[in-house]
Amino acid sequence: MTGTRITAVEVHDVRFPTAEVGDGSDALNRGDYSATYVQLRTEDGPIGAGLTFTNGRGNELTCAAVQALAPHVVGRTVEEIFADMVPFWRSLVVDPQLRWLGPDKGVLHMATGALVNAVWDLRARVAGVPMWKLLADMSAAELVSVIDFTYLDDVLTPEEAQELLEKSAAGAEERLAELKATGYPSYTTSVGWLGYPDEKVRALTHAAYDAGWRAVKMKVGGPLADDVRRAALIRSEIGPDALLMMDANQAWGVDQAIESMAALASASPYWIEEPTHPDDVLGHARIARAVAPIRVATGEVAANRVIFKQLLQAEAIGVCQVDACRVGGINEVLSILLMAAKFNVPVCPHSGGVGLCEYVQHLGIFDYLRVSTSLSGRMIEYVDHLHEHFVDPVRVVNGRYQVPTAPGYSVMMRPESIARFSFPDGPVWRERTRS
Amino acid sequence: MTGTRITAVEVHDVRFPTAEVGDGSDALNRGDYSATYVQLRTEDGPIGAGLTFTNGRGNELTCAAVQALAPHVVGRTVEEIFADMVPFWRSLVVDPQLRWLGPDKGVLHMATGALVNAVWDLRARVAGVPMWKLLADMSAAELVSVIDFTYLDDVLTPEEAQELLEKSAAGAEERLAELKATGYPSYTTSVGWLGYPDEKVRALTHAAYDAGWRAVKMKVGGPLADDVRRAALIRSEIGPDALLMMDANQAWGVDQAIESMAALASASPYWIEEPTHPDDVLGHARIARAVAPIRVATGEVAANRVIFKQLLQAEAIGVCQVDACRVGGINEVLSILLMAAKFNVPVCPHSGGVGLCEYVQHLGIFDYLRVSTSLSGRMIEYVDHLHEHFVDPVRVVNGRYQVPTAPGYSVMMRPESIARFSFPDGPVWRERTRS
Repeated sequence: MTGTRITAVEVHDVRFPTAEVGDGSDALNRGDYSATYVQLRTEDGPIGAGLTFTNGRGNELTCAAVQALAPHVVGRTVEEIFADMVPFWRSLVVDPQLRWLGPDKGVLHMATGALVNAVWDLRARVAGVPMWKLLADMSAAELVSVIDFTYLDDVLTPEEAQELLEKSAAGAEERLAELKATGYPSYTTSVGWLGYPDEKVRALTHAAYDAGWRAVKMKVGGPLADDVRRAALIRSEIGPDALLMMDANQAWGVDQAIESMAALASASPYWIEEPTHPDDVLGHARIARAVAPIRVATGEVAANRVIFKQLLQAEAIGVCQVDACRVGGINEVLSILLMAAKFNVPVCPHSGGVGLCEYVQHLGIFDYLRVSTSLSGRMIEYVDHLHEHFVDPVRVVNGRYQVPTAPGYSVMMRPESIARFSFPDGPVWRERTRS
Repeated sequence: MTGTRITAVEVHDVRFPTAEVGDGSDALNRGDYSATYVQLRTEDGPIGAGLTFTNGRGNELTCAAVQALAPHVVGRTVEEIFADMVPFWRSLVVDPQLRWLGPDKGVLHMATGALVNAVWDLRARVAGVPMWKLLADMSAAELVSVIDFTYLDDVLTPEEAQELLEKSAAGAEERLAELKATGYPSYTTSVGWLGYPDEKVRALTHAAYDAGWRAVKMKVGGPLADDVRRAALIRSEIGPDALLMMDANQAWGVDQAIESMAALASASPYWIEEPTHPDDVLGHARIARAVAPIRVATGEVAANRVIFKQLLQAEAIGVCQVDACRVGGINEVLSILLMAAKFNVPVCPHSGGVGLCEYVQHLGIFDYLRVSTSLSGRMIEYVDHLHEHFVDPVRVVNGRYQVPTAPGYSVMMRPESIARFSFPDGPVWRERTRS
């Protein structure tokens, strides 16, 4: 077969020493933001780039998992993969030996996401279009053909998905013109990390408001009195009309989440994110009933499409925060966007970390153009960290993501960043090991 | 501090080439049964042994995850760990960087299980008692003190757990005398792997019946007509009174599971195991309502205590098949046994693989002595594979596990087996690479 043949999978363990400055600290995580960074080499064609985000230690595990999955990718052409994509996707997620280590979760699934996204990136680069456009130009039938409906068809059948996509196609060009003119709405998480003192939170909130943000997110899940004080501080800075979101990063049990939100309700939060363990569908459902009209949001650590299916079935979430690489890449994300649309739950993708903003802007734009057709209640998270390491970084103007124009999925890293931050042999890490 | 200090964590990638003979083949797995085998070295003390079972490729990932977690274990003494065990357990499962790769699931959690079980094994060897006895001799308060109730206390509080354990203690000596006299009931999964032809299934079923088994399990999830034919064949060999269990190994969607079981009901199965995706709590609940009085069983791939909590809350399972090392070791297993007892669901631990029979006999015996106090509906799976590699293998007589007497958790491997089957450098694998 002719086409763009993948000749090698290259994987880099890239880590940024964020833990030492307190960026990215929340109730349960204090991380060195890291990327398991994948490049697909081709014969005479472009390079495809994908990554999965991790929190530092353990990034060697997702790198090793990419190597374990690589034989399913090397030697294939992009064209044959896309001619029949579900069997390709299943070769990764239903590998008869590796599947035992999941299935569909954790290290192996995150590595799957990096690889699958790299294949999609390569496809977009071959076509010379940004990812949102590659997706938006696909027909309803083509989109349905890349989704594995196994374990989902009790809630969403291929026929329903196709009907939904056909119905949503109308007006896509007008919506695109609107996005190009005004950008996609976002919110910022840079104001209220748990590692920051009150005065830094106040200054950052003030600066964010001045920069045009009307939706900000704070971390909660520390001592409740501290959370309440910081919430009041931020609310006083942003005024009564701007949105304040809260993120507990799984710090609470179910009953504790309900009690904590009773105390935090005075700051009028719009949503409470990750109130408890990400696997606890029934727990989230109970919390959602108790804290309404405050919405429950989750997704960044929701392992896969089956967890999202249940969160939606159980009416456990009012905001769906799908992540670009926690699940098995674009194929799985598409199924989650469609289920969210069926249940009429807005998708506000998880972002931050390394490269997540770059990734999810494409998902948000595609969701608006071809799936949800609405911006109501939709915002993409934005964190102003680490964008300088990407060849084609996000552009956010007045709190709105600008539509990307370069080909691909936007997570290709600068070679000099890969070299400097490679673990453990890059100069940034060698320096730290010496001292 | 004095005590038995852990000086090193040693991990071995041990794989058995079972895929080539078809043992262990089911609807989704065709594996080389493998162990991520951990030995804790001590100063002047015994060695502690633990393992997690994997299916071949990818065993290097769980081995690497053990190395990533090892710093939480090396340098500690067994005595200080057991003096305050929840913080130790949480140092593994709530590591501020590694947790992102789970939480509580897949590669990292299975590695946690191997390490935590090795620590318990070491404790039992220091005490000179088998694991079931170490546990059975602990007071209710001591048992409660090793359990992390975070994310569980909406369903089971420490107080409830203690009360349950205190109530269940009565009669433990009589129950132990009974087990020593008659053994713990079991069933066999060696008769009906999908890789076997009908005549082999018939011969194995016949032999199992003659050997005293009155409960056998077959694999389903292949073409439905084949499953129905094999079920009828096995039922005709074992007669109407023996129990026939069916295991779909996640082959079906929710609706498909319900339809398939309608066809297979004619063979009067006692339970259907893993009818669909292991994360689908709501799906299992729907299947359970549809197939009653056939019970739904699952657990070998249930990622953690939060999934079990929900399976029990939702009345999704009629049999709880906890695995010894899929979850984070004995500490987490204890919480699952207690929740199952609260919901009055019998525990029939998952076994087979490598070393799982050796492990779970201790859990079944402890459950009977101190938690459920009943054998009604309880059986431990038994598969007659690979026991020769263990220093203290299970003894099953007339279909009943005999109470183990040697100190520890029974998964210490023979040094010659470790050497021969080490991957990729042991002679068994070097031979195969050459040919």
